[in-house]
Amino acid sequence: MWSKCCRVSAFGHQILQQIGNKAFVSTVLQIAGEPEGPCMKTAVPGPRTQQLLKDLSNVQQAGSTQIFVDYDKSIGNYLVDVDGNTFLDTYTQISTMPLGYNHPELLQAFCNEHDLKCLINRPALGVFPGEDWPRRMNHIVEMVAPRGLNHINTMMCGACANENAFKHAFMAYRRRERGSDNFSKEEEESCLCNQPPGAPKLAIMSFKHAFHGRSLGTLSTTRSKFIQKIDIPAFDWPMADFPQYCYPLENNERHNKEEDDKCLAGVEELFEKWGKNGMPVAGVIVEPIQSEGGDNHASPYFFQRLQAICRKNGAALIMDEVQTGGGPTGQFWCHEYFDLETPPDIVTFSKKMQLGGYFFNDDMRVHQPFRTFNTWMGDPGKVILLEKIIDIISRDDLLEHVRKTGKYLIEQLKRMEKEFAPLFHSTRGRGTFVAITAESAGARDQMIDKLRAKGVISGGAYTHTLRLRPTLLFGQKHADIFLDALYKVVKGMKSS
Amino acid sequence: MWSKCCRVSAFGHQILQQIGNKAFVSTVLQIAGEPEGPCMKTAVPGPRTQQLLKDLSNVQQAGSTQIFVDYDKSIGNYLVDVDGNTFLDTYTQISTMPLGYNHPELLQAFCNEHDLKCLINRPALGVFPGEDWPRRMNHIVEMVAPRGLNHINTMMCGACANENAFKHAFMAYRRRERGSDNFSKEEEESCLCNQPPGAPKLAIMSFKHAFHGRSLGTLSTTRSKFIQKIDIPAFDWPMADFPQYCYPLENNERHNKEEDDKCLAGVEELFEKWGKNGMPVAGVIVEPIQSEGGDNHASPYFFQRLQAICRKNGAALIMDEVQTGGGPTGQFWCHEYFDLETPPDIVTFSKKMQLGGYFFNDDMRVHQPFRTFNTWMGDPGKVILLEKIIDIISRDDLLEHVRKTGKYLIEQLKRMEKEFAPLFHSTRGRGTFVAITAESAGARDQMIDKLRAKGVISGGAYTHTLRLRPTLLFGQKHADIFLDALYKVVKGMKSS
Repeated sequence: MWSKCCRVSAFGHQILQQIGNKAFVSTVLQIAGEPEGPCMKTAVPGPRTQQLLKDLSNVQQAGSTQIFVDYDKSIGNYLVDVDGNTFLDTYTQISTMPLGYNHPELLQAFCNEHDLKCLINRPALGVFPGEDWPRRMNHIVEMVAPRGLNHINTMMCGACANENAFKHAFMAYRRRERGSDNFSKEEEESCLCNQPPGAPKLAIMSFKHAFHGRSLGTLSTTRSKFIQKIDIPAFDWPMADFPQYCYPLENNERHNKEEDDKCLAGVEELFEKWGKNGMPVAGVIVEPIQSEGGDNHASPYFFQRLQAICRKNGAALIMDEVQTGGGPTGQFWCHEYFDLETPPDIVTFSKKMQLGGYFFNDDMRVHQPFRTFNTWMGDPGKVILLEKIIDIISRDDLLEHVRKTGKYLIEQLKRMEKEFAPLFHSTRGRGTFVAITAESAGARDQMIDKLRAKGVISGGAYTHTLRLRPTLLFGQKHADIFLDALYKVVKGMKSS
Repeated sequence: MWSKCCRVSAFGHQILQQIGNKAFVSTVLQIAGEPEGPCMKTAVPGPRTQQLLKDLSNVQQAGSTQIFVDYDKSIGNYLVDVDGNTFLDTYTQISTMPLGYNHPELLQAFCNEHDLKCLINRPALGVFPGEDWPRRMNHIVEMVAPRGLNHINTMMCGACANENAFKHAFMAYRRRERGSDNFSKEEEESCLCNQPPGAPKLAIMSFKHAFHGRSLGTLSTTRSKFIQKIDIPAFDWPMADFPQYCYPLENNERHNKEEDDKCLAGVEELFEKWGKNGMPVAGVIVEPIQSEGGDNHASPYFFQRLQAICRKNGAALIMDEVQTGGGPTGQFWCHEYFDLETPPDIVTFSKKMQLGGYFFNDDMRVHQPFRTFNTWMGDPGKVILLEKIIDIISRDDLLEHVRKTGKYLIEQLKRMEKEFAPLFHSTRGRGTFVAITAESAGARDQMIDKLRAKGVISGGAYTHTLRLRPTLLFGQKHADIFLDALYKVVKGMKSS
């Protein structure tokens, strides 16, 4: 039983010890000053958070605010709120903090005059980049570009990255149809009136439960929750089914393979249907693991076949690694697990990468200036952080650390799941990009709330999923704190 | 004649002196260390820029790059490139540098531990804001919110600001139609399939030559240049004519008033037509001065009537102040010149404000969380700069400085225009947000190139317009350097 494999000290200073697990000891990477565990001083939200919420509500819809944070005191994997509560943070600002809070090396990032000046002299990068911009872009491509994707554009956020990825897909599709980039007068004029042929009827296909952003283009491919889409006009673009697997995978191979094939057949049908309807599909966007939609996985086979279908139809395969990119799955890019014949045509990123952007292959290159362009085109201040983060991931072998921690975390969750089924089930993940499914939406919400009351912040996804998005420094020690808290929470819940 | 009213010292140290113009002397605000004038050492682009361009082209389409900049050496209104050339910069990173390069007070912005930590602990502001976020948002609303628009959302850039403004307009329109925010099951389900009634057929109207961004929603309202839109699908939304004035205004009152009325009638027709076609207009987006489209102005009368038409049709009036906001017109918001009956429903910003966002009125409020939301929702690191900038604008009375400099600049350009017509004409502007129209597209391009060769960076807009977007510290001394360079350039050109 779960409870027998760990010893728990007094709450607030709980240290779980794994007996006989050497890996546990050897892979603890810790930021100096991290507390030993959560420490709660008030109910959540505490009185100071409640006061600040009133102040903020004067000028903003603040209904999504959970707590106000003392970012000066937060450290490593621990978030400290304005009421003095210390939380183990396994959600890390919606998966955006690869090295946790106040990492000492990042604190040094702007302590030299050159990089400090970068912050206040922000260039319009498409026209007047700084001297170090070519070196920085080449360095990032060398260090982390997916194999074969040797071009990079930076943007501000994940939605802008995806919006621009769509544009590359559309332009490449039309270039192939036209045989060149020599536009006709009719195209040049009609596009200004939003009419074909200049503004062509083309589509981006996405998957049920997908999340790709909230700007009007990306929102037309987002299919996770109605609250994100309702009342907003959308392009009439196709939505394919995404495999819904049963877990554990090893006991459900046949069902899951059938899911793959059924969904792939659906993709082919939609290509055909939209083509016949006069709005061909120019690109397919897909997450390697559907995140906001509930941490839904698909097999390498599914992605390999999806790529083949895209290629057959002349559509770009856009891999949205906004949430999976930057290491949390134990590879720098999650799609590296899929053993694709060639890399995707475009890989988009943001979140842990500190700014949005995308890598792309030769086919997706734009041949004229000002076709993908905007005022800022990214932000050197964020790239300075990104370069440091990439260097630290490489130097400290953090991907291996993530794989080890993730393996441990998943094993323990699977053991716990057996004890508590059906209260939660379907433990799944790559690296520490891990999720479980609760028996009901209510049970999931209860788990998150009760975990938070015990000093552990986790995240929800879709209706039934509880997801973990910890830092890359999250180790078995932290995992044990989470596991212990979850154990206590679930132990106190009743299956309906 | 122009040349008689100024004395010019040797090139590279030219100081123009206005005899008997006291205002000139009294309003020079200067950042310590600014050079006396441009100083050119190489042709442009210089050899170092050319080398860096090759390096960057390895990984990016870099065809829009003009020069690489030494941001460490750039100061105030002067930009220094990697070849050691010093330019007077009247374009300032596409109008985004309100206080110029390396302003000493901005350099202090992150020299305290708290604000430095803000840079590396970036919150998901919609869920886990920092303790000072409510104070900062309330402060910004108090200091600069347009009268009556007491709500603010921050985003990352101007396109995201406009995308979200559209969403507020759509949601408000549907709430009024529905009488509430109680969604039907059919709406909740259909929106996930991008179909009505959940994803309604609604439109945003914009104007010919408008620029509102390049994401797919905003690009559907952008109507300035085909290179921005070609090959990209767009919403079938209406485009109204924008007044095309003749200058000088005082000699063309009748024609310009007719333009206003003709365009306003067009707006009314489009409201009716799109309403009948089953895609009612939920909002109209307009720039107070069309910028990218050629610095096209319209009268207070036009905007007052436009607001009345919007109100009659239940559509939101969205004022896109991405380029005009933050002081360059001599008011903090350009629409303050229009004496509107009430403020616009939404005012969007970015550029000089350092990050995107929008102010909005009570009608435009969203009542449920997560309807306008994203991971970062802005960036405290930029807000720290914005607050400093706002305080300096207020403390140093920079709006008055801008008005004085602008008045002088426009007077002198109008005098010069008389000497050189028809080579350039139609001098126009508010504050230092000033433009002239060249005789031809070729002449305009020549002017920009030759000005740059003389050490003055200016900007193009649309085909024939040369626009100035200097810092708010740009004074008559700087204006004289620009005027002198322009005089020499135009003097050497021949009318076709």
